[in-house]
Amino acid sequence: MKKLDISNWTIKQDLSNLEYMNESETVFAQANGYFGIRGTIEEGYSNEIEGTFINGFYDTEDIIYGESAYGYAKERQTQLLVPNTKNIKLFIDDEELNIEYSKLENHFRELNLKNGIITRNLTWKTNKNKILEISFERFVSMDYENLMIINLSIKPLNFSGKIKIISGIKEDKVKSLDENDPRVSGQLKYSLKNYDFFKKDDCIVTKSKTYNSNLQLITSVINKSDNIKVKNIKVEGKNIFEEFCIDLKQNIESTVTKYCFYYFEKKSKIEVEEKLDLFKELTSKDFRYYKSLQEKYYEEFWNISDIILEGNKEIQAAIRFNIFHLIQSVGKNGKTNIAAKGLTGDGYEGHYFWDTETYVIPHFIYTNPDIAKKLLSYRYSILHKAKKRAEELSFKGALFPWRTINGEESSAYYPAGTAQIHINADIMYSLKKYYEVTDDLDFMINKGLEMLVETSRFYADYSDYIDGRGYCINGVTGPDEYSALVNNNTYTNMMIRYQIKFLMDFIGNLKIENIQLYNEIMKKFKITNEELILFNDIYEKIYIHYDKEKNLIGQDDSFLNQKMWDFENTPKEKYPLLLNYHPMIIYKHQVIKQADLVLSMMLIPEYFTDEEKKANFDYYENVTTHDSSLSECIHGIIANELGYEEMSVNFFENTVKTDLYDLHNNVKNGVHIASMAGSWQCIVFGFLGMREIDGVLNFKPNLPRKYKKIELKLRFKGRIIGIILTEDQLIYSLIEGESIEIVSNGEKIILI
Amino acid sequence: MKKLDISNWTIKQDLSNLEYMNESETVFAQANGYFGIRGTIEEGYSNEIEGTFINGFYDTEDIIYGESAYGYAKERQTQLLVPNTKNIKLFIDDEELNIEYSKLENHFRELNLKNGIITRNLTWKTNKNKILEISFERFVSMDYENLMIINLSIKPLNFSGKIKIISGIKEDKVKSLDENDPRVSGQLKYSLKNYDFFKKDDCIVTKSKTYNSNLQLITSVINKSDNIKVKNIKVEGKNIFEEFCIDLKQNIESTVTKYCFYYFEKKSKIEVEEKLDLFKELTSKDFRYYKSLQEKYYEEFWNISDIILEGNKEIQAAIRFNIFHLIQSVGKNGKTNIAAKGLTGDGYEGHYFWDTETYVIPHFIYTNPDIAKKLLSYRYSILHKAKKRAEELSFKGALFPWRTINGEESSAYYPAGTAQIHINADIMYSLKKYYEVTDDLDFMINKGLEMLVETSRFYADYSDYIDGRGYCINGVTGPDEYSALVNNNTYTNMMIRYQIKFLMDFIGNLKIENIQLYNEIMKKFKITNEELILFNDIYEKIYIHYDKEKNLIGQDDSFLNQKMWDFENTPKEKYPLLLNYHPMIIYKHQVIKQADLVLSMMLIPEYFTDEEKKANFDYYENVTTHDSSLSECIHGIIANELGYEEMSVNFFENTVKTDLYDLHNNVKNGVHIASMAGSWQCIVFGFLGMREIDGVLNFKPNLPRKYKKIELKLRFKGRIIGIILTEDQLIYSLIEGESIEIVSNGEKIILI
Repeated sequence: MKKLDISNWTIKQDLSNLEYMNESETVFAQANGYFGIRGTIEEGYSNEIEGTFINGFYDTEDIIYGESAYGYAKERQTQLLVPNTKNIKLFIDDEELNIEYSKLENHFRELNLKNGIITRNLTWKTNKNKILEISFERFVSMDYENLMIINLSIKPLNFSGKIKIISGIKEDKVKSLDENDPRVSGQLKYSLKNYDFFKKDDCIVTKSKTYNSNLQLITSVINKSDNIKVKNIKVEGKNIFEEFCIDLKQNIESTVTKYCFYYFEKKSKIEVEEKLDLFKELTSKDFRYYKSLQEKYYEEFWNISDIILEGNKEIQAAIRFNIFHLIQSVGKNGKTNIAAKGLTGDGYEGHYFWDTETYVIPHFIYTNPDIAKKLLSYRYSILHKAKKRAEELSFKGALFPWRTINGEESSAYYPAGTAQIHINADIMYSLKKYYEVTDDLDFMINKGLEMLVETSRFYADYSDYIDGRGYCINGVTGPDEYSALVNNNTYTNMMIRYQIKFLMDFIGNLKIENIQLYNEIMKKFKITNEELILFNDIYEKIYIHYDKEKNLIGQDDSFLNQKMWDFENTPKEKYPLLLNYHPMIIYKHQVIKQADLVLSMMLIPEYFTDEEKKANFDYYENVTTHDSSLSECIHGIIANELGYEEMSVNFFENTVKTDLYDLHNNVKNGVHIASMAGSWQCIVFGFLGMREIDGVLNFKPNLPRKYKKIELKLRFKGRIIGIILTEDQLIYSLIEGESIEIVSNGEKIILI
Repeated sequence: MKKLDISNWTIKQDLSNLEYMNESETVFAQANGYFGIRGTIEEGYSNEIEGTFINGFYDTEDIIYGESAYGYAKERQTQLLVPNTKNIKLFIDDEELNIEYSKLENHFRELNLKNGIITRNLTWKTNKNKILEISFERFVSMDYENLMIINLSIKPLNFSGKIKIISGIKEDKVKSLDENDPRVSGQLKYSLKNYDFFKKDDCIVTKSKTYNSNLQLITSVINKSDNIKVKNIKVEGKNIFEEFCIDLKQNIESTVTKYCFYYFEKKSKIEVEEKLDLFKELTSKDFRYYKSLQEKYYEEFWNISDIILEGNKEIQAAIRFNIFHLIQSVGKNGKTNIAAKGLTGDGYEGHYFWDTETYVIPHFIYTNPDIAKKLLSYRYSILHKAKKRAEELSFKGALFPWRTINGEESSAYYPAGTAQIHINADIMYSLKKYYEVTDDLDFMINKGLEMLVETSRFYADYSDYIDGRGYCINGVTGPDEYSALVNNNTYTNMMIRYQIKFLMDFIGNLKIENIQLYNEIMKKFKITNEELILFNDIYEKIYIHYDKEKNLIGQDDSFLNQKMWDFENTPKEKYPLLLNYHPMIIYKHQVIKQADLVLSMMLIPEYFTDEEKKANFDYYENVTTHDSSLSECIHGIIANELGYEEMSVNFFENTVKTDLYDLHNNVKNGVHIASMAGSWQCIVFGFLGMREIDGVLNFKPNLPRKYKKIELKLRFKGRIIGIILTEDQLIYSLIEGESIEIVSNGEKIILI
């Protein structure tokens, strides 16, 4: 069976075959960062995994521990399913249009990545041999975050007469996509409460709220058509529908436009009328209007964000698909972030992880820095909670939560949660990159610096000065979750060193360039000279475990002294290891789940010599299972740098194809946001070899022989730089902005 | 307020004051190893913490994890509260005898440690000025495990007339003694189901069973008195009572004897009639008969188990109290063990831990080796589950559960549970001691050896051979729970080395002494030569972390490289640390919860030089908080060995007084079995300096100046040896058995 028909800009599905429906619900998911819907069809079907998600809309409940202890995360936060507004049912002579039972022909749908619109066409022959051509067009508006529009067109080919339409709001479902897999783990045990159903003017409305998190939700729908006569309202359980008829005329197309509206806020009382007025105003414009806005939005988006990769159509489609899902999923209002599964599934309970800063933000920094800024603003919005968390753990400063929606730590297994204190440094790394790429001093002064100071304070207080070693960061977990609670995870220590240097440099420069602001800052954040001396001391003396005998950098103090995992006698079906071995068994071996030290090589290349990169990559790649989808992209980038072209291409292709080609057989649960962003990184940091070092873009391009051409654009310090890399050409061009110096293969080039 | 009046053999309580009732419920708890009751009074009172526990009677439920993983313990096992049979209510003219409201005089109770009987006397003046002398005598039979007897005597002083008595079976309660403390943690969320209430001949009966563990329970009561006329049966909720009247005659004592019976088994159908016949037969003998048996039992018990410690009456009483509770709590049928709180509370869910082998068994080995044998037989009875557990964790051999009732691992926090793989070696250590002290070859051949082979196989498979180090035991937790998942915990590695040597020696000796048996054994347990070579290799090359620079043995590979806990700035109320700091913070410091390396010094003295003992004790004692009640006794023993007399006495007194003097303010939750046994160890292993090395008893006595005399007996290889230590005398005597050589202060002595 050919599952999907994938071409340059479109993904097409033949709906005469329902075998790949759950997977395609993810592929055809639509979103705008505020909310998103899974790609089920308007009429529904029996095995659908329906889901509508609002970014940051969650409920809490107490985490139950088998054995609890001081300082454990207290509340589970779970992204909720919200009511489904896309549902539309059609009846001719009381016969219902049904994808499973009706006689349908030419039933296809197509997602157009150029504008995010899904068009579905079908021909329906009823039992009484009435034939209709029906099409649905729908999209979630990128311009109006609360809005989704569905345009239904119906043309009877061999009759005139009535068609009955039922369209409204269906209740949220209480169902997890995959309850058994601990990587998914989110259990939506509860739904919304206090449903209120009513009609207000043209609006069908449900008003509901969460049990514990005090979030209020308004869901509303308006059905519009020129020739609706009477509308009846029906409430069934927690569903509210409008039922109406349209007079169809043979060979004439009739249309119904369904406007869908979601709005939530954390408030004890929500101004419903005000919000509905806003919605009604939105419906004064027609489908065409919003469609043209949508097209314009995406045109501008693709203009900067598209990547042309010639030589393999599958890859070309997949990278576009990934970029498309990133812009769909990312929160753009500064109050929300991007969940590990975007807005396409409830895996990982809709939580925000370091995936944002380490995987997703680089893409936005170089293409849509305003979005990167919003993501960092979200972190600033939860800084007060990060301070509280540090205090609870008896430390100064701030510790960001490993996984969260509302800013509280929500990881129920601290060895792979709270112990990953590198989260602070991951966020600060992306702050540094954002600042260097945008020169956004305002953001630094108003938001960034406070985060930088407080997270550095946490590290300074957490670090243990040990004679003969220096500052040690003990009892933590690095990115590799196949080790836990180790001493001196090198990734963590290097990242801390890097962020402390950033802080010292920033303050140092400020003192030179703006003494008044410097003084204000020192006073505002109560930074003392003793503190700066301590930071400098940590910067100089933070311990990095180097094994002289093996001539390797240790992933941590003990990793290289552990037994090698018996890869030879581990059958394929025992991967991922975490599903088949007790954590304590995994931890005591040399076996790595995901890029850890290798990630440091990419993020802070200046901390490694070329020889170190090679020796350590060779060693660590050999013991890495890549059991996390965050891993292969990073190894692919360093493999490319080291000239391991085939390996690099393999890792890249595994990464870029993860979702569109369902490599892990779990795309039905939602997309893998980190590997989507990782595939962008594979191209930019991998094949183009791009690194930003001390404010200058460095390139070391290497086009794999499999591909013919890479062409893309990057924003950098207000410029847009174009890059074209082919088998025999490498062209940098300054598309917008003032001239700038870059480095290509070690040579300085000035773009004018 | 004087809480209790404690003298040589008795503990007396003035019941005119109810302030210390919950605590005294524990102190006055009675048990026989099969079941136990808390020391509430027959009439009950409003704030009582009632509890009746049957050893090994539990229910299960799924453990809920915030985040689960492969190989986690699946089921919680929780000791259940069972119906209360001690209740008796008395009424004169419908006025109820009530400890809170009645006019009572001379209300005292006394626990006699010599026979385990509690006698309670009171004078009751009713509102109508009727005066009665009432006494209750009760005990849990040491001879008949299912039986408890209460003898009620009533003498009216100024009237003749009726007294109404209500006596029966009250339902189990659903209540935990302390739900907030994670050290208690047991939550009895469920009780028994399928209550069946009936009267059969004289028996009042409830039949019930557990929800998940399929245990069936019969509780029955028979009230006997010469002058009962009519008995009425009442069922109220889950309670069943008999109501009857007795004609009292002025100045004549009337008695009622209440026989109480508990029996459970794991069966789908229980033969109720058969069991009730057994009970009825028991009631054919009167109170006096059982009382004299009880007295005889305890006389024999104290004859061997008593310790005379002159010089401090409190200590003398406390050590007897502790020894008394050990014999009360310990399971004696080979199917059960001894819970951390005995049969006096539901703390730690009634689980069996290493406390049995490391703290309790030594006491029994040298006083009642048959009981030690039963405890080890219990381990053998769960060996098949330990094998299954090892397999689940992908290892050969057997891994005993860290905490359990039914043999399955029930620790919900594996870093302080399953990771404590030293449990195997702890059990094998006590097997070795049992074997050496009793020469019980039968037990070794039929039960012990299989455990020894399978647990050694587990260790051999678990160990990782690391070049330059040898066999490492990585990723485990030692006794000190303020470190977790460490590499090469020295205690663990030494204990493994010790048990492997035991195995090799045993097999080696067998080969010399009984080649036929040797061959049978090798075949039966499929022991190969390769395996023996591997065992030997591990014995020779197991890694012990020695820090040359600091001249110390490391508690583990990284402990000595960690930061010192800031004891100076930790206020008293922040102890125990586990209640006030996140585990990951505690783990990364040099801070110890309980004896770890110091415990090895006691258990395997031959692995340490005197200098090593001193240097390491000095160092580790300094960083030990003794936040566990398993700690001070061990440090006290080594302190004594090193000549730190004052410290040794302090630790001993803290240990021995823990429960009787409620040093931790939590005796109301139940006794601390390990520190009760630890106080015996302080005297024998501490003040007498007794060690058994290679089958010979060694003594290095040192009587602290505070005390005048220690006198006790020990069983050893069929002998009973008496020891008297005073300020100026040290007398060893052979009380029973053939002559034997011992070593005292380095000198060989032959006792004849």
